[in-house]
Amino acid sequence: MAETYQRIVLASRPRGAVTADNFRLESVPVPALEEGQVLIRNHYLSLDPYMRGRMSAAKSYASSQQLDATMIGGTVGEVVASRHRSWQPGDQVNGMLGWAEMGVSDGAGLRKLDTARIPLPAFLGAVGMPGMAAWYGLNRIMQARAGETVVVSAASGAVGSVAGQLARLRGCRVVGIAGGEEKCDYVVKALGFDACIDYKAGRLEADLADATPDGVDAIFENVGGACLDAALARTNAFARVALCGLIAGYGGAAVPINNARLLLINRLTISGFIITEHMDCWPQGLRELGALVADGRITYRESVTEGLASAPEAFMGLLQGRNFGKQLVKLI
Amino acid sequence: MAETYQRIVLASRPRGAVTADNFRLESVPVPALEEGQVLIRNHYLSLDPYMRGRMSAAKSYASSQQLDATMIGGTVGEVVASRHRSWQPGDQVNGMLGWAEMGVSDGAGLRKLDTARIPLPAFLGAVGMPGMAAWYGLNRIMQARAGETVVVSAASGAVGSVAGQLARLRGCRVVGIAGGEEKCDYVVKALGFDACIDYKAGRLEADLADATPDGVDAIFENVGGACLDAALARTNAFARVALCGLIAGYGGAAVPINNARLLLINRLTISGFIITEHMDCWPQGLRELGALVADGRITYRESVTEGLASAPEAFMGLLQGRNFGKQLVKLI
Repeated sequence: MAETYQRIVLASRPRGAVTADNFRLESVPVPALEEGQVLIRNHYLSLDPYMRGRMSAAKSYASSQQLDATMIGGTVGEVVASRHRSWQPGDQVNGMLGWAEMGVSDGAGLRKLDTARIPLPAFLGAVGMPGMAAWYGLNRIMQARAGETVVVSAASGAVGSVAGQLARLRGCRVVGIAGGEEKCDYVVKALGFDACIDYKAGRLEADLADATPDGVDAIFENVGGACLDAALARTNAFARVALCGLIAGYGGAAVPINNARLLLINRLTISGFIITEHMDCWPQGLRELGALVADGRITYRESVTEGLASAPEAFMGLLQGRNFGKQLVKLI
Repeated sequence: MAETYQRIVLASRPRGAVTADNFRLESVPVPALEEGQVLIRNHYLSLDPYMRGRMSAAKSYASSQQLDATMIGGTVGEVVASRHRSWQPGDQVNGMLGWAEMGVSDGAGLRKLDTARIPLPAFLGAVGMPGMAAWYGLNRIMQARAGETVVVSAASGAVGSVAGQLARLRGCRVVGIAGGEEKCDYVVKALGFDACIDYKAGRLEADLADATPDGVDAIFENVGGACLDAALARTNAFARVALCGLIAGYGGAAVPINNARLLLINRLTISGFIITEHMDCWPQGLRELGALVADGRITYRESVTEGLASAPEAFMGLLQGRNFGKQLVKLI
């Protein structure tokens, strides 16, 4: 077995946009296992927008990422050594082992995976945290019903793509918002959304109005700013907004809700949520998502870069929307 | 009986601020009653911020007030003639008869009042629509619990004063926001709030921070704009915002939520509501409010002007915060 492995730590906190300087690649020794521990070799690392919040010292919903510590992140991989009676070498597992080729766990938060019908990296996407965020927002906040119109921003992304497909499966009219013609084509043709608006085309409000002739009953919001305002402008009475992300503001830009007046006029409800605080929903949600992915009723797309050293660049691309689908780093 | 009565109609729609020109005082004949109708002499007319929205042609939560029709408004008064078997002359009633000395009703929406322990005009305030708005926001949206900190804007007003007192009664720390020292003194000394911030003093954010050392768990929002942003800045995780009004924007000013980022970071829920859409709650709410007012556990203050002709000026004052407590027009 290797005596060292590579990891990426937070070298400095970003001022505005994230830069390569904020990260540092290190070689560290593979630790000796203590009783009750398992050693895991990570096969895929998940890159997600929430990581941007953790990089700042400013108050966020979770404690900040420590400087000089391994960057936080979800991983899937394989147990390579175990001194824990619940885990055996060869077990495929999902955990939060961070931006690293290997990691040690005491089993807390580790999930055993069955890859018979679901590919390993899908447990970082549609059958993992992003899928659960979609499931929770749709089922617990938006409570979208057949015949209603649903808007999903960042529609080609890991969360938005699942949110929209789940809404379609329950009979909603689903309109996505994404950046660029290629992504919009994919959202409509591959994911089956009824329409998708290219926000980069510069006619967001008018295009969204055209695509939502009966107004909007529920919004799955990943972006904020102009995207959210445009969707709010189309709301019907009692529309619900699941606020999952504000990626438009992660670089420091202001993301005001200028259409706040509509919250009152249309009696809207907006709820911000963090999916890791609703673990009670995960067993049911993951069971449903797993079945839908295994049956091909939910499809997804991945942007995969190779090697741990590619993670910072891929992460910066994700924050700028350069990825297309779930952003992963393949480690092995 | 008089052969004519006076009413005020909407003469023109305001452009920005409401002006006296937007109203017209008229004398109209007292109509002959048809079978199933009652004639009511109004004793008090209620003036409320929501009327501003109705004066505009723009989309609002209710249909616009028609031009040349009697201005909408809640009233309390007495049945003076009846051809309806449920109503007798002398009955004291609450209805929506508008800015008028008299009115005809078929009984729909008419409520019989018992003034043995509650003064007649209180049914337009703490035991009427404003009280119910406070009750609903607190009980159904904010769900404030003992020990939590609650912020109430327009704290000396008809709605805010009741919202704050209800929150105090259930053991919350209650911090008001009001305009001017006199109102703030009243909110603390007469209404029993723990603190009240004078937004006109120009230190809203700092003063609110000082008054909420444990953060804010729930907000009853009547104003919007800077008031709401300041309260949001103090929120704890999972705080709830009942959005009842946006009076800061009723003259046309923008009322963005600049602290929208906190909706996600603190996993907030904001719900806009219109109390007349929740009539199922009124029997319980009015029973509770009536008992609290009769027992003196909820107090209130009224600004009363005399005569129907005083209504436009009083209404313009209300929109500018010149009233102090529930704004009424005494008609008889």
